[in-house]
Amino acid sequence: MIEQTELRNAHGAGRFLLVCEHASNAFPEEFGDLGLDAAVREAHVAWDPGALGVARRLSDLLDSPLVAATVSRLVYDCNRPPDATGAMPPKSEVYDIFGNRDIRPEERLARTESVYLPFHTAVSQQLARMLALGQRPVFVTVHSFTPVWFGQKRDVQFGIIHDTDPHYAEAVVAAARDLPLNVALNEPYSAADGVVHTLRLHATPHDLAHAMLEIRNDLLGDTAAQEAMAGDIAVVLERALAAHDEDGRAA
Amino acid sequence: MIEQTELRNAHGAGRFLLVCEHASNAFPEEFGDLGLDAAVREAHVAWDPGALGVARRLSDLLDSPLVAATVSRLVYDCNRPPDATGAMPPKSEVYDIFGNRDIRPEERLARTESVYLPFHTAVSQQLARMLALGQRPVFVTVHSFTPVWFGQKRDVQFGIIHDTDPHYAEAVVAAARDLPLNVALNEPYSAADGVVHTLRLHATPHDLAHAMLEIRNDLLGDTAAQEAMAGDIAVVLERALAAHDEDGRAA
Repeated sequence: MIEQTELRNAHGAGRFLLVCEHASNAFPEEFGDLGLDAAVREAHVAWDPGALGVARRLSDLLDSPLVAATVSRLVYDCNRPPDATGAMPPKSEVYDIFGNRDIRPEERLARTESVYLPFHTAVSQQLARMLALGQRPVFVTVHSFTPVWFGQKRDVQFGIIHDTDPHYAEAVVAAARDLPLNVALNEPYSAADGVVHTLRLHATPHDLAHAMLEIRNDLLGDTAAQEAMAGDIAVVLERALAAHDEDGRAA
Repeated sequence: MIEQTELRNAHGAGRFLLVCEHASNAFPEEFGDLGLDAAVREAHVAWDPGALGVARRLSDLLDSPLVAATVSRLVYDCNRPPDATGAMPPKSEVYDIFGNRDIRPEERLARTESVYLPFHTAVSQQLARMLALGQRPVFVTVHSFTPVWFGQKRDVQFGIIHDTDPHYAEAVVAAARDLPLNVALNEPYSAADGVVHTLRLHATPHDLAHAMLEIRNDLLGDTAAQEAMAGDIAVVLERALAAHDEDGRAA
């Protein structure tokens, strides 16, 4: 049995709920290594390198809970619904994911039940507990992306993505202006690319202020870099929340 | 410990997923009777009388799974989020719900964890399993409503309500024209009244065709009436789905 989620700072008094779907490149024994060599299992297609380090530090700095997945996105991508090809992708960027070709229905079901469901149940539980106690957290997911994708260099360094309600994401972009980073709204992806499943499942049904953060992973090369980035982003998230509050928007 | 959900026909081959949030007027011992006498515990504020009988029969006729709650909506209304007053209402229509006045935060949390979370986890699990196996069910919730509300008679007999995507609900209204019933779209309530929490949590994030059915409870007085109504509605739901398919809309 896999331990599918890391729950950190469950009783934090801060105003955020942090989620990290692509935190891990672990390949649990029961599903094997999908025929991939170590290089692929370390590559960005297997996880979001550095994202967990940032997310944990944000959890500490913002005194807010973090729910993080503990299994590679190639086994099951928790930011995709069970009927999406991308939930268990046969190909990811330029890599063939051999163990995801011709997956039998029982295998799709087993991975959904072992990875996707426990992860999202953990998010639902944490959120429902906060709501029951009168907290309406700002819902923030933490991701990283590769600087070179299909051979193309990406200039954006910090992308902020939203589901249907853009307001908090826009406030984050505004608050990030002072950072020495190339910041962009809805880059390198947007909701239209199917990357906001977690936001759609948890934030939007409750009308929660939300943002999906995408940090270019060459800026997160070691623990020191991740902690420094988290320090900058924590300030930005708090400032954006203050601006959002001032606009009279409920978090 | 409460058994919070009834799951019927989990492996049904039909194209629907049925949900009945207000199926029961049971008051589990751990939360007491909320200071209510038997008459109130039998009244429409405690549950949707007749809805479970219709939903079970629909599950059989449509060969489709049903997830039904097993606790009164006055203990926790599973069609409301944990931060809504209506989740544990201190007043419902003309009735004072004594045990829901001044609920302590720990009590709100306990009911959320004991009733709301297990119910919605059961719905999420059933839906995720179907999605993983390549089924995209039409998501249908089954409710009943009182013929007299705050002293006003209601003329509508069969209401069909939708969240953001109206198409399947509109197809149900069209298919119901032949029934000897007063049929209306978005009556006696609509999404604006906060009654589509279950649809927002489960149907809309997956872009599933969906409808919330509201049947006037004087038409569901006994098992025979409930089964006859379910027979009529099953035909309507199937016809509406055929029309929806013909329009080229994905279910």
